[in-house]
Amino acid sequence: MSSDLLCGSHAAPVVTQLRRHAPLVHCITNDVVQNFTANVLLALGASPAMVVDTDEAAQFAAIADALLINLGTLTRPQQQAMRAAIDSACAAGKPWTLDPVAVGALTLRTEFAQEILARRPAAIRANASEIRALTGESGGGRGVDATESAHQAREAARLLARRTGAVVAVTGEVDYITDGERTVAVEGGTAMLTRVVGTGCALSAVVAACCALPGDRLENVATACWLMKRAGEEALTVSRGPGSFASALLDNLHAQAFGGAYETH
Amino acid sequence: MSSDLLCGSHAAPVVTQLRRHAPLVHCITNDVVQNFTANVLLALGASPAMVVDTDEAAQFAAIADALLINLGTLTRPQQQAMRAAIDSACAAGKPWTLDPVAVGALTLRTEFAQEILARRPAAIRANASEIRALTGESGGGRGVDATESAHQAREAARLLARRTGAVVAVTGEVDYITDGERTVAVEGGTAMLTRVVGTGCALSAVVAACCALPGDRLENVATACWLMKRAGEEALTVSRGPGSFASALLDNLHAQAFGGAYETH
Amino acid sequence: MSSDLLCGSHAAPVVTQLRRHAPLVHCITNDVVQNFTANVLLALGASPAMVVDTDEAAQFAAIADALLINLGTLTRPQQQAMRAAIDSACAAGKPWTLDPVAVGALTLRTEFAQEILARRPAAIRANASEIRALTGESGGGRGVDATESAHQAREAARLLARRTGAVVAVTGEVDYITDGERTVAVEGGTAMLTRVVGTGCALSAVVAACCALPGDRLENVATACWLMKRAGEEALTVSRGPGSFASALLDNLHAQAFGGAYETH
Repeated sequence: MSSDLLCGSHAAPVVTQLRRHAPLVHCITNDVVQNFTANVLLALGASPAMVVDTDEAAQFAAIADALLINLGTLTRPQQQAMRAAIDSACAAGKPWTLDPVAVGALTLRTEFAQEILARRPAAIRANASEIRALTGESGGGRGVDATESAHQAREAARLLARRTGAVVAVTGEVDYITDGERTVAVEGGTAMLTRVVGTGCALSAVVAACCALPGDRLENVATACWLMKRAGEEALTVSRGPGSFASALLDNLHAQAFGGAYETH
Repeated sequence: MSSDLLCGSHAAPVVTQLRRHAPLVHCITNDVVQNFTANVLLALGASPAMVVDTDEAAQFAAIADALLINLGTLTRPQQQAMRAAIDSACAAGKPWTLDPVAVGALTLRTEFAQEILARRPAAIRANASEIRALTGESGGGRGVDATESAHQAREAARLLARRTGAVVAVTGEVDYITDGERTVAVEGGTAMLTRVVGTGCALSAVVAACCALPGDRLENVATACWLMKRAGEEALTVSRGPGSFASALLDNLHAQAFGGAYETH
Repeated sequence: MSSDLLCGSHAAPVVTQLRRHAPLVHCITNDVVQNFTANVLLALGASPAMVVDTDEAAQFAAIADALLINLGTLTRPQQQAMRAAIDSACAAGKPWTLDPVAVGALTLRTEFAQEILARRPAAIRANASEIRALTGESGGGRGVDATESAHQAREAARLLARRTGAVVAVTGEVDYITDGERTVAVEGGTAMLTRVVGTGCALSAVVAACCALPGDRLENVATACWLMKRAGEEALTVSRGPGSFASALLDNLHAQAFGGAYETH
């Protein structure tokens, strides 16, 4: 039941692989975070592509290295495209990642999340209440203290991982990443990450990218979480508020991937 | 017919309330400004959420503290979601705010704006030509000088406020905020605010958030306008153009809400 | 078969015209880059407007000075709006510009691009593989060296220009702009432009804006390309990564248009 702490020496080789493999990530994500998500992937050396028509989504999911499904601004037409993309990705042996934004509170996305969970995502990235909604334990966390809540979230993540076969990342003050057997903890970060929209959604895109890498998926997904927390800490030291923080976050993700050296022709 | 000038001593307690109440604002807004709108609300301590499917929009409008309806990239499916959200917000006693982007010039949105005005928005935030389009006086402002135009805009805003029961904010070089009886003026700001897309749309979201606060709605809405003008002035002093200005604007809104201190865990 | 190199002395008067004419550019573009596209146009003194409903798109394309059609997140409803807008722009004698994002790989957009090419765009801005897909030579470029690839791209652009009557800009390490007879080259820029999403899409919007200017269309479009490369070079000198680079890019575009002086009331 204990968690191992991920440290930088484990993360560094995964970051290098991410830049070298430069996975092409098909993102079907919400309207609010498309630009930031793409910029986070580009900063790390990955290639984002948003393809949304149902037929094109099916075509593209087979070509791309990984697929991200984010339910933040779900619509019925988008459900069709998501189903087609997931089926196509699965048929082509490409991993897909679920970000179940705000499941629990809203019916359409909650039912849809349950439906697509059966198609075996490679990874799920969510906050504690979303994870509990997926395991059917929604609402129990309110009012309990933070320690209890972190413990609950970790246990719910383990349960969800065992049920679905996915690596589950439940993120918050401490992130827990689990395959149902092993659990890795990632500490640090900054509350300023919660004052910029889309940092969680963009992390899910990085998780999707890391699922396309060779090696241990648990460690790959944990590295995605580690990257965002480290970049947040670094960005905070050079920013004056959430606007300059968002810019600095991209700068720092890029520096982690490319060693701080400018790319040149 | 005169206007009182809003000063910082009136605005400060509203800013504090905004951060403390942290209203959850349901934004159904245009495709161009979703990210910036969310980041402006987050910078001030409020919570944005964009929920767009018709059924989910109806569900969520009852849960959220306030609703924003922005017509910038109106589509027919979006009209359905907006109607459902407005009805749900009204039934739950939650205030909704209208940003009638570009009404007057384009038929679909102009007719739709007239339709939903009957559902009694708590507030309307628009520029002078949009306000005049809503009162049926469109086109009269062209060619007249700025003083005349400001006077016309203020009178049109008063008329619209009396007709609809909304607090109306007509924004420009000077903002006028009126409930049809009292009118408050907010001066200052910078033309650089017009070189960053979405500053007006994001202001409408802050107006929506302020409509969820206790106290005098006229003063709450005027404070939203005051916040954006002050942040613009401050941002201009540390920016080299519209890119760095947009970042600095978010930094300064955050500093106004959180006292300039970094949030920490 | 040789290309003339565009230099700053040719570009400067076009930049001045762009700011003075301040063309209103109707952008029907992809979900990922709407905000950045609008901010790039605003930085240069142009006016962006995104209008997406089919009826409103037809209305607005006749009012605006130029139209941009970008296929990045094409959907079937969007196809209808694009057809209506193009027809309306053509009927009103307004130039339209095509950005055929990712044509070749995906069926819906490839067939649609071929369909609308018959409606005679004023300009096309694309990368080498997209240009070759439009001329039916897709796939030949893989594995050949960069010199050969640049030569191929230039020849494909000339062919496409002669077939369609459009000014074609094929952009990459060197941009080539051609009307089928004359070809202008624009050198410089920085690879960092490829680490920020939407720089190519935003360039297409600037190309659209420049098509609304009087004078030689070939030189106007080449100036759009020149502007983005120069701004990229300048931005690189003051940035620490792609986040601060994106802000600095907007700052520098603004400085090129407005002479580096802040606008004031």
